[in-house]
Amino acid sequence: MLIMAVNAGSSSLKWQIYDLPAQKQVAQGVIERLGTEAALFKVKFGDEQAINKQEPITSHEQAVILILTRLKELKVVDHLAEIRAVGHRVVSGGEQFTESTKITPKVIQQIDGLSELAPLHNHIEAYYMRVFAKLLPNAQQVAVFDTSFYSTLEPVNYLYPIDKRYYDDYQVRKYGAHGTSHRHVMQQAANMLHKKVQDVNLITLHLGSGASITAIANGQAIDTSMGFTPLAGVMMGTRSGDVDPSIIPYIMKKERITDVATMIQILNQKSGLLGVSGVSNDKRDVDEAAEQGNQRAKLAQKMFVNRIVKYVGSYLALLPKQADALVFTAGIGENDPQLRADVCVALSHLGVELDATKNNVRGKEMFISTADSPIKVLLIPTNEELMIAKDTYRLLD
Amino acid sequence: MLIMAVNAGSSSLKWQIYDLPAQKQVAQGVIERLGTEAALFKVKFGDEQAINKQEPITSHEQAVILILTRLKELKVVDHLAEIRAVGHRVVSGGEQFTESTKITPKVIQQIDGLSELAPLHNHIEAYYMRVFAKLLPNAQQVAVFDTSFYSTLEPVNYLYPIDKRYYDDYQVRKYGAHGTSHRHVMQQAANMLHKKVQDVNLITLHLGSGASITAIANGQAIDTSMGFTPLAGVMMGTRSGDVDPSIIPYIMKKERITDVATMIQILNQKSGLLGVSGVSNDKRDVDEAAEQGNQRAKLAQKMFVNRIVKYVGSYLALLPKQADALVFTAGIGENDPQLRADVCVALSHLGVELDATKNNVRGKEMFISTADSPIKVLLIPTNEELMIAKDTYRLLD
Repeated sequence: MLIMAVNAGSSSLKWQIYDLPAQKQVAQGVIERLGTEAALFKVKFGDEQAINKQEPITSHEQAVILILTRLKELKVVDHLAEIRAVGHRVVSGGEQFTESTKITPKVIQQIDGLSELAPLHNHIEAYYMRVFAKLLPNAQQVAVFDTSFYSTLEPVNYLYPIDKRYYDDYQVRKYGAHGTSHRHVMQQAANMLHKKVQDVNLITLHLGSGASITAIANGQAIDTSMGFTPLAGVMMGTRSGDVDPSIIPYIMKKERITDVATMIQILNQKSGLLGVSGVSNDKRDVDEAAEQGNQRAKLAQKMFVNRIVKYVGSYLALLPKQADALVFTAGIGENDPQLRADVCVALSHLGVELDATKNNVRGKEMFISTADSPIKVLLIPTNEELMIAKDTYRLLD
Repeated sequence: MLIMAVNAGSSSLKWQIYDLPAQKQVAQGVIERLGTEAALFKVKFGDEQAINKQEPITSHEQAVILILTRLKELKVVDHLAEIRAVGHRVVSGGEQFTESTKITPKVIQQIDGLSELAPLHNHIEAYYMRVFAKLLPNAQQVAVFDTSFYSTLEPVNYLYPIDKRYYDDYQVRKYGAHGTSHRHVMQQAANMLHKKVQDVNLITLHLGSGASITAIANGQAIDTSMGFTPLAGVMMGTRSGDVDPSIIPYIMKKERITDVATMIQILNQKSGLLGVSGVSNDKRDVDEAAEQGNQRAKLAQKMFVNRIVKYVGSYLALLPKQADALVFTAGIGENDPQLRADVCVALSHLGVELDATKNNVRGKEMFISTADSPIKVLLIPTNEELMIAKDTYRLLD
């Protein structure tokens, strides 16, 4: 049966169609620059067939209509009714949604109501759910939350050391992010380790332009580096990650910035690899500049590794026993052997032994540690869309 | 020879007199509620003699005159000229002062000029230096900086992942704190471990109402939990330590706080143990409330341990090889066996084996790990004043 996984952003719409339970990808596509006269419509399907077309797509509804029309035109489906269900990635499930959930009008309303926690996402995602409900009225819709994997966190790990009232009254707490990715690689890692999911102890490193590190004990997330928002944690492409909050008023005063929101925006958009290197938010550009001798780029590389090493160390300590494995995933985690080597070498005295030869690989699911490494190292390409499709399939009536 | 160590705060003045090189304490005292009509003047000296007297002490200069007058009256000294030198604790040495420094008028000016980095302290400390220069004109004065122990940090550890310009233009970086305490316990630990200072690898835990954790590799600080200001790092009595900076604008909006400085003040003064427990900023009060079943107090205890465990883990990872020892010091570190046990038990799978019997002790310099523990655990009472006196002695002409 065909299941569509939808990942909606403010100016893009990614989707994939899977045949379940075979887990076979049938088609995938993306609309970029959505909302403009020069939107880009891309599809891959069948036997390496692909379409790239620039055309005006000015509304979210028009985007969905276009995708569905093309699916028939391209004979990906004969009838739209073959799409039995649509799974939606939802950035924030707040505290209400502790697992993937069938979509009803009430659920859409609740998701929309959480927009304050994910200003760029939840409102648009709720809107798409309404569009799909209208255009595919017979398909079951399911919401898969980035945050729900973190519903197992204990208060000791999700609360901040601040006035308890800010949690009680305004739900200020750690929510985490990338949960669907961490959950996917955890399940794959359990298979590779020949263990049951409920028995694995892992530290999963989702390292992309956004990055988060999660501690998993007995198949459950116990802590994660992203916080109330995706600003916290390790250094990222444009985000600072953790900083002393006191730098905020200090820099504001020096730079005559009067609005704290502007300062938070700087920490989100002008910091991280970009801010330190002055070159780019893209790790590959930073690496290239460093290769050519750019000192700030070299510093950015080192800081990036350093913050990851410290987070992994903190989670090795937090886990109740020795971790079974570290798992690298996402753009940088999958495709940057040097970064993986730098992290693992720094951790070698804690029982992480990388196999340098095996590590010289990109985007392939495999062990990259030595056979004797006390803590294994796994490379597992992430696949949030497959995870969304699987959850959606599981929840079908 | 007699050396006076001075530790000046905004409303208190602590001092001790040591006989060097014997390192014998000759007298110590404190003036509390300084600047009021009901200031409290306390001295201990000689053979367990003590004086406690309430009297009006309304200026810093008056405070110093009173101390010096009493020292003669009480026959602690026959002539003030016996005090050969005065060592001053200075909270911030910025980037200029990388070690303890003889005081000259220019040095006083420089210290005063760093007031922006330590708004409550440097200005007052500079003022006291001028007072002592006037009242004890023949005594050499020395400044001992809380921050200088961190001058060995590398940029990768002291820089924040933000626009590099903020460091270049405004010196926004990690400065650390409690350096004199960490340095003192490091030297003691080296003795206890029968190692040279330049060979020890330690994680030192200064846990008082303020708290910081420092990673020491080969006798040099390589990282520390406090940051640009003492707000960062682990949870403290009233300070939050690390939080997602994004909670600042969110709480400000919800609470209609218009000034970010007010919000930072809340993170400094109304958070930490106090904010979570709702009971007290004093760990002993929180423990007592937890004992009586107060759930928020229990949560505060757990969070306090949790943040320490994670920092120790991050520094175990950062050190280039296995740590020789963890060192507990300061009010809580020295006097809270349960806290030490909770931290060490959480770290047991990383090679920390506490001896529960030995650990049942307060404020005594000793090993509290098992004989076989791969990473030793030391309890070392801090003594910043002795460290200040020793540095002052070392710098005498």
